[in-house]
Amino acid sequence: MAEEAAVRAQAEAVRRLKQDKADPDEIAKEVAKLLEMKAQLGGDEGKQKFVLKTPKGTRDYSPKQMAIRERVFNVIITCFKRHGAEVIDTPVFELKETLTGKYGEDSKLIYDLKDQGGELLSLRYDLTVPFARYLAMNKITNIKRYHIAKVYRRDNPAMTRGRYREFYQCDFDIAGQFDPMIPDAECLKIVHEILRDLQLGDFLIKVNDRRILDGMFAVCGVPDSKFRTICSSVDKLDKMPWEEVRSEMVGEKGLSPEAADRIGEYVQLHGGLDLIERLLQDPKLSQNKLAKEGLGDMKLLFEYLTLFGITGQISFDLSLARGLDYYTGVIFEAVLLQQENDHVEEPVSVGSVAGGGRYDGLVGMFDPKGRKVPCVGVSIGIERIFSILEQRVQASEEKIRTTETQVLVASAQKKLLEERLKLISELWDAGIKDRFPKQATLQPLLRGTRDTMPLPIKSKKNLWSLSRRGE
Amino acid sequence: MAEEAAVRAQAEAVRRLKQDKADPDEIAKEVAKLLEMKAQLGGDEGKQKFVLKTPKGTRDYSPKQMAIRERVFNVIITCFKRHGAEVIDTPVFELKETLTGKYGEDSKLIYDLKDQGGELLSLRYDLTVPFARYLAMNKITNIKRYHIAKVYRRDNPAMTRGRYREFYQCDFDIAGQFDPMIPDAECLKIVHEILRDLQLGDFLIKVNDRRILDGMFAVCGVPDSKFRTICSSVDKLDKMPWEEVRSEMVGEKGLSPEAADRIGEYVQLHGGLDLIERLLQDPKLSQNKLAKEGLGDMKLLFEYLTLFGITGQISFDLSLARGLDYYTGVIFEAVLLQQENDHVEEPVSVGSVAGGGRYDGLVGMFDPKGRKVPCVGVSIGIERIFSILEQRVQASEEKIRTTETQVLVASAQKKLLEERLKLISELWDAGIKDRFPKQATLQPLLRGTRDTMPLPIKSKKNLWSLSRRGE
Repeated sequence: MAEEAAVRAQAEAVRRLKQDKADPDEIAKEVAKLLEMKAQLGGDEGKQKFVLKTPKGTRDYSPKQMAIRERVFNVIITCFKRHGAEVIDTPVFELKETLTGKYGEDSKLIYDLKDQGGELLSLRYDLTVPFARYLAMNKITNIKRYHIAKVYRRDNPAMTRGRYREFYQCDFDIAGQFDPMIPDAECLKIVHEILRDLQLGDFLIKVNDRRILDGMFAVCGVPDSKFRTICSSVDKLDKMPWEEVRSEMVGEKGLSPEAADRIGEYVQLHGGLDLIERLLQDPKLSQNKLAKEGLGDMKLLFEYLTLFGITGQISFDLSLARGLDYYTGVIFEAVLLQQENDHVEEPVSVGSVAGGGRYDGLVGMFDPKGRKVPCVGVSIGIERIFSILEQRVQASEEKIRTTETQVLVASAQKKLLEERLKLISELWDAGIKDRFPKQATLQPLLRGTRDTMPLPIKSKKNLWSLSRRGE
Repeated sequence: MAEEAAVRAQAEAVRRLKQDKADPDEIAKEVAKLLEMKAQLGGDEGKQKFVLKTPKGTRDYSPKQMAIRERVFNVIITCFKRHGAEVIDTPVFELKETLTGKYGEDSKLIYDLKDQGGELLSLRYDLTVPFARYLAMNKITNIKRYHIAKVYRRDNPAMTRGRYREFYQCDFDIAGQFDPMIPDAECLKIVHEILRDLQLGDFLIKVNDRRILDGMFAVCGVPDSKFRTICSSVDKLDKMPWEEVRSEMVGEKGLSPEAADRIGEYVQLHGGLDLIERLLQDPKLSQNKLAKEGLGDMKLLFEYLTLFGITGQISFDLSLARGLDYYTGVIFEAVLLQQENDHVEEPVSVGSVAGGGRYDGLVGMFDPKGRKVPCVGVSIGIERIFSILEQRVQASEEKIRTTETQVLVASAQKKLLEERLKLISELWDAGIKDRFPKQATLQPLLRGTRDTMPLPIKSKKNLWSLSRRGE
């Protein structure tokens, strides 16, 4: 292997240069050469090539992207605070067993840390399970909190559509005993406020209840043992046509065709208070205890949403199932709508941007005595929203400011450096945001060209706001 | 094993309850019982007991702690922005090889992720290496950026002293070609501003230069091959007396006693411009190219710091060495001082709260062609600062507000619920921060006791700010 010998020779050359304390520039050059040679060899030795990249499914945020991200966070945090929420933070990893048994089939997507001695750890998969762990650990039975942090899923990324392996969740949850459906209604109001304030266009919030789903399965003749797996099939209705979902139920999951057809009739229903009233009169469903409870609460919820004036964007939708195991009551999901070619037809969904629901059993799973704390919460999916806004900013050629510089201290002569440093230091100490020009922009100053003079004040708001050509 | 049989029986009971769709309350109770039994058995099966805790060396932040944390961040971010910095973000993990060979001996403290197929990943150890990777990857040669994020080190935690395995770093770095020592002086100005604004008491910023250290080692007769290891010994001078450091150099590291004694004379030196001038006249040191360069730049730096008016808190200290491999020029570290019993003696250091330096070679290690981007930066150690402020708040019994609630909507009768919901919804939509009372505080309202009336307005600043007993 001539290449391998060349790499060894180069490595030896680098060692010698380092030993001889050669010019650091020269060493760096030779090291880079060595790295490149190794990278080209890479694959052959079973080693990966050195690639200059972020891990699969992750990305850096540039200053421009951060500026957009901050805008979105600002809208969300303002809303959460408006609703009286406190904020908490938890570690990025949890004991592995804290996450075990909480996510059903999705558990295979959890990132584990290497066993380097000590505890077995996993990166958090969402913010809900750490929140429940926090409540149980601190014996908190009543809190309204928000938490904005990154979560991790070893999923197949689709980054152009805003699907990452590392992504932000913005969670708002209400824990504690309250009058029925009051916190649930507040969560929906929050989703509505945020999507309205972000000005993402038309949206729809679909609402259902796990108890209505379970009751529906029961009256359709689904055996108890198949509730969760049939629920997973229903969950696919936003991506698949009914016929495919039906054949999965009957073919793969062994449900009787009659039961499937009965489900098929229910899951195409969506509406508002009228539909709830109709189902409360449904001869079968109204006989099922769970469904009746769920429908009663759904009616109450819609009454509150009517008081909030937001029912126009809310749809009671029997096809909404949600993936996670831990939901016990109301579930919901918000989708952005896209008018197709301006026709007034059925709007096309471009994907979910928020979701949540009630999980009254999760805290009890952590409490040593199984004490339960009823919870309901919402998670805003920031990455998809961020993708949309980023594309919009790019299309509009809007200029995004990435600094808050107010003053640029410049002079026509280099020897005034000391004066400039003294001046800039005074400005800093007075809390004025300024900036020492980089050498590149200093150059014209030294030549005394017209470019050196600051342009007149641009912003009326801020007397300090100067702007220079090319900035 | 009777206990094991009991656990199996309990597990079976839980399975049966679930199958029978028993009352969820009952299931939760039995599951908790099972978990407790398993936990007690735990150790015997080689399994860990289920413990309700955060991983070793990590912690949750409660709303009160978050309020203090936000205050600290606010001071730091305001300062970074005042200096014209942009902000970036990078993933919490990097390709393992991105971190390889950057941290010297400390590499053993890096958290690796489990190999679950795909890339080998590690949690970031600091924000500097990801920054250098970001610059090389995006071919950026000029940027002033800040980055505030958590980093991970499998160190022995000492949480009461603010040492964690997951902790925040607040980094500010300047990359690019500038007039000599201008960005270096700005970094020191920033540390000074932040420590001043945080009002943590007296502090001292020690400054040195890797080139002065290397020159000093050369003229003291340290062989080239021992520069880094002797540098590590010098780095311990803030924790060990000179005699111990000397015996490590001579005993463990095989340095000649004469060389060690010569080093001993230099490393006790600290001062300002006067000391720099004296060393520039030092017959040996002034003959060494590296030391002369370093001293010349140090002189320039102190001239700038004099213009900034901050030399009173800056000490040129030949004992400062800093641990990390990648520094190439100026290095610095800020310590908080504590007057011992009000004596006017040598102040006692209570530990480092900020550190940084120049690293001109790091970006070149990532660039495929070894192109270098000179960089200098500072990292503020927020956890230690946070511990100090938290203790101070506790001692002062200061009340920390954890919400921004402005209005509490209450009524004396339950049947006004609808009116209250309508009113609160209007307030939310008008951007007023309010809060629906939790049931606990609603109870007295229903009984019409005196407790139900809001107390008079407390804050003069905010007409909306109402307060109720016990809140």
